[in-house]
Amino acid sequence: MPDKVAVYRKEHFNAAHRLNNDEWDEALNKRVFGKCNNANYHGHNYDLIVKVVGEPDPATGYVIDLKVLSDVINEQVLQKFDHKNLNLDVAEFRHLNPTAENIAIVIYKLLRPNIDEKFYLQVRLYETERNFVEYPV
Amino acid sequence: MPDKVAVYRKEHFNAAHRLNNDEWDEALNKRVFGKCNNANYHGHNYDLIVKVVGEPDPATGYVIDLKVLSDVINEQVLQKFDHKNLNLDVAEFRHLNPTAENIAIVIYKLLRPNIDEKFYLQVRLYETERNFVEYPV
Amino acid sequence: MPDKVAVYRKEHFNAAHRLNNDEWDEALNKRVFGKCNNANYHGHNYDLIVKVVGEPDPATGYVIDLKVLSDVINEQVLQKFDHKNLNLDVAEFRHLNPTAENIAIVIYKLLRPNIDEKFYLQVRLYETERNFVEYPV
Amino acid sequence: MPDKVAVYRKEHFNAAHRLNNDEWDEALNKRVFGKCNNANYHGHNYDLIVKVVGEPDPATGYVIDLKVLSDVINEQVLQKFDHKNLNLDVAEFRHLNPTAENIAIVIYKLLRPNIDEKFYLQVRLYETERNFVEYPV
Amino acid sequence: MPDKVAVYRKEHFNAAHRLNNDEWDEALNKRVFGKCNNANYHGHNYDLIVKVVGEPDPATGYVIDLKVLSDVINEQVLQKFDHKNLNLDVAEFRHLNPTAENIAIVIYKLLRPNIDEKFYLQVRLYETERNFVEYPV
Amino acid sequence: MPDKVAVYRKEHFNAAHRLNNDEWDEALNKRVFGKCNNANYHGHNYDLIVKVVGEPDPATGYVIDLKVLSDVINEQVLQKFDHKNLNLDVAEFRHLNPTAENIAIVIYKLLRPNIDEKFYLQVRLYETERNFVEYPV
Repeated sequence: MPDKVAVYRKEHFNAAHRLNNDEWDEALNKRVFGKCNNANYHGHNYDLIVKVVGEPDPATGYVIDLKVLSDVINEQVLQKFDHKNLNLDVAEFRHLNPTAENIAIVIYKLLRPNIDEKFYLQVRLYETERNFVEYPV
Repeated sequence: MPDKVAVYRKEHFNAAHRLNNDEWDEALNKRVFGKCNNANYHGHNYDLIVKVVGEPDPATGYVIDLKVLSDVINEQVLQKFDHKNLNLDVAEFRHLNPTAENIAIVIYKLLRPNIDEKFYLQVRLYETERNFVEYPV
Repeated sequence: MPDKVAVYRKEHFNAAHRLNNDEWDEALNKRVFGKCNNANYHGHNYDLIVKVVGEPDPATGYVIDLKVLSDVINEQVLQKFDHKNLNLDVAEFRHLNPTAENIAIVIYKLLRPNIDEKFYLQVRLYETERNFVEYPV
Repeated sequence: MPDKVAVYRKEHFNAAHRLNNDEWDEALNKRVFGKCNNANYHGHNYDLIVKVVGEPDPATGYVIDLKVLSDVINEQVLQKFDHKNLNLDVAEFRHLNPTAENIAIVIYKLLRPNIDEKFYLQVRLYETERNFVEYPV
Repeated sequence: MPDKVAVYRKEHFNAAHRLNNDEWDEALNKRVFGKCNNANYHGHNYDLIVKVVGEPDPATGYVIDLKVLSDVINEQVLQKFDHKNLNLDVAEFRHLNPTAENIAIVIYKLLRPNIDEKFYLQVRLYETERNFVEYPV
Repeated sequence: MPDKVAVYRKEHFNAAHRLNNDEWDEALNKRVFGKCNNANYHGHNYDLIVKVVGEPDPATGYVIDLKVLSDVINEQVLQKFDHKNLNLDVAEFRHLNPTAENIAIVIYKLLRPNIDEKFYLQVRLYETERNFVEYPV
């Protein structure tokens, strides 16, 4: 029986966002989120690494064709997020604060139905080189 | 006489922007600037490298103290640009399209009066890892 | 119930060190530690990545505010280690060889009491781009 | 009892390869492997990260001397793979498609007998910065 | 009169090659080119940075649209070089040794007629992270 | 007549140092050099990029064999600097403050007599990813 291997594909997108809790007043938002609360938004070059774990197919030697994985990420995530304002342009963040944690969870939920359920799936999202998150753990 | 040495300091800032020519109609802006024209902005992690050329001071061995240079960049550029919307929050871009080229020229003009004129000054700006500019040349 | 997410914060410090076992003679130390045993020390730019795992707070979308985590790392680790000689200036290494393994364990012990115990904590330390360690596993 | 620590060593090699299933006809190989099937090969700068997990030796503070680990990787892997054609020059790939997944498994099998069995061993292989794999999981 | 700005676009391609002088015997080729002379080829992930210098267009703020520059590089260079064997698949290297120096010169000659002559053009080519070249100087 | 090409080789070394002017008192040194003045030294992973400009040899396609250049750098620079204390172990810095500027000038002087004078030579030295220098300019 073949062993499991993890394969990874790195993609990126550029987006604007701001951190804000609609149920809080301006002062509390400012205190909690600091400069990330700037009313007119700021932005990031997000790096996204998608991990898929499964057994390599003996005929191809692939766990999953990374070109296919790249296409899925492009269709499900990049088309929606790249060169967009996450708060205003992406339905999932109308009522959900676009922290790196929440963006990673949303990306996972967008990808999961499009990746064969026999595979384990995990996403890592870099908001900057120094701040990044991983889901699930 | 001591020889000249170039010293470099790298800083970064995160900002939102959109590319748009106010004198053009929406269709032309869309055609020329593509997804960079998105009405609600997108954003980047900008990496900024500032180059200063001069003779090392024999007493210190420094061309310029890079902590001092870092402080100047922080005061003159990062305070204005970091976690901001370049089009809406930065006066210099009210009537100037915030392309990487124009941002680099604006940064140069902000820094130049604050760096001793005996030094040559140049800025390099990375909008992404794959798109970057340098001014002057 | 919210799912767990891992968040990461990258910091760095510059330090001198040498590898040496005080109970061994010079020849044995030289043989085992090679050029890392140089009597007058050598040094590194250490990159430190701290991982915290927990459930995002529904009100903020944060597992932990990465600015707060950064402050804790600065107070507990960087203030002690940055621009220091680990063997001579840091009490923890007076009788402990400052290998990357031991530095990572010491950093973990410095951070653990300052991070809410509901969170899992892990540190990764890069001595160079090619040599790095992780603790705990 | 000392705790376990993971140590990592990064190496690299440059090699040519092509993806092909000898039991398939040319059209099917072309369809499945695309430009990776190019008859005259293409190539990569492979980055290899080897992870070893164990308890640090109290006398040295090392899980394993990374110079020793580097030597083992050089002897067992780089000597065979570096500046070679994986399909033609490396016996293990005469009848095994040199996908990143299969290369990682072969590297693991070459290293495992040469690393003390008390250590856990894992390899991560970067074919490009954007495509990489890990084995075992 | 607007000032000149340098703009840069980074692309990459993966290719096989070997270094060999057809007019030399095998022993001399082996002695001069070492493992780069391996008969069955080896390969690299080449990173290519194209620099274009000119005056920003006042209407767009662009020296040149980097999407257009990227398209030109793709059509003129990547289509010919990516996932190819430079020695066997690329006409320019049938009788020219594909050293980094010669590849850079060939890329320059492929791009030059396709970039408006009012612009200065320069290419930088990374064969590995540690070996790279620039042309012209 | 062949055109000139620039070739680059990247090497690295790890060293301890401190910044200090022997003719100043402790208070002035502390004020000018801050934490870089720490009495017991600190250290860095220095990245060194050596640039050589010349005409490619028509027989080899090389400006200079980068393996030969690497050997020269190793013999003239790395043997002296790697895993050393620049202030105490390297004669050139007994009476010269080892700032990045001065280290770059010293490296240039060590290399220049060992590189054919027909070539232009330049060194770039990274003290950290964010602070680096270039000589000559």
